[in-house]
Amino acid sequence: MPAEGNTTYTDKAIKLAIDSILFAKTGLVPAIAQQHDSGEVLMMAWMNADSVAETLRTGQVCYYSRSRKKLWRKGESSGQTQTLVDFRIDCDGDTVLLQVDQLGVACHTGRRNCFFNAIRDDGVTVIAEVLTDPDELYKT
Amino acid sequence: MPAEGNTTYTDKAIKLAIDSILFAKTGLVPAIAQQHDSGEVLMMAWMNADSVAETLRTGQVCYYSRSRKKLWRKGESSGQTQTLVDFRIDCDGDTVLLQVDQLGVACHTGRRNCFFNAIRDDGVTVIAEVLTDPDELYKT
Repeated sequence: MPAEGNTTYTDKAIKLAIDSILFAKTGLVPAIAQQHDSGEVLMMAWMNADSVAETLRTGQVCYYSRSRKKLWRKGESSGQTQTLVDFRIDCDGDTVLLQVDQLGVACHTGRRNCFFNAIRDDGVTVIAEVLTDPDELYKT
Repeated sequence: MPAEGNTTYTDKAIKLAIDSILFAKTGLVPAIAQQHDSGEVLMMAWMNADSVAETLRTGQVCYYSRSRKKLWRKGESSGQTQTLVDFRIDCDGDTVLLQVDQLGVACHTGRRNCFFNAIRDDGVTVIAEVLTDPDELYKT
């Protein structure tokens, strides 16, 4: 049973959502995660139809890991989950925007978001601090 | 010469930026455009190395159109340009976040952003108004 406060959907809505998404030939669609209240763009990852269905059914964001070739329940190792607040599809159906409530940090480097490399005239500069030691995030 | 207020970069910075991006086998990288002050996610499109270079050189966002197979200078037909404010690369280098100042509307439907389809229990619901008639945007 989903935790209190999750946004979950009916089977009908899940089917209609999946039918509305134009998955690439790979079976995947890019999914942008945005912190719902601050507007911060946290990360971009990929979803397949199964991960879309699981996300909408449970209210907890689930991606598809291209490297591990399986569902990636965000936070399953690190505890840094994303609770779904709203699920949006773009004008031509080939990109998804997940409005979420991020617990802790979104990035595996321990930073709040993944977009911490900024182009400056002297090169690529890291502009965000590590908030949580990655060794702490992934300890077993 | 770029218009006043643009963010433009040196040739050195452009080369370092391109070297830091992990383009897919297609030669493309997904690029998220975000309104820099409000945090609104406007759209997602694709860039190749040439479009990254042109964006950083001119301070006006240029994508690569997969359908037209050529550089897509955002706003060249519609006038709805995106002025670059900051150029960010994610932790593993395979996604770009463009912080921009969007003139008018980002979406070809005449809506401010492209993510106007929201999943609701009764289906996919349009949650944003058309601000500019698309016929006005693309009239010749």
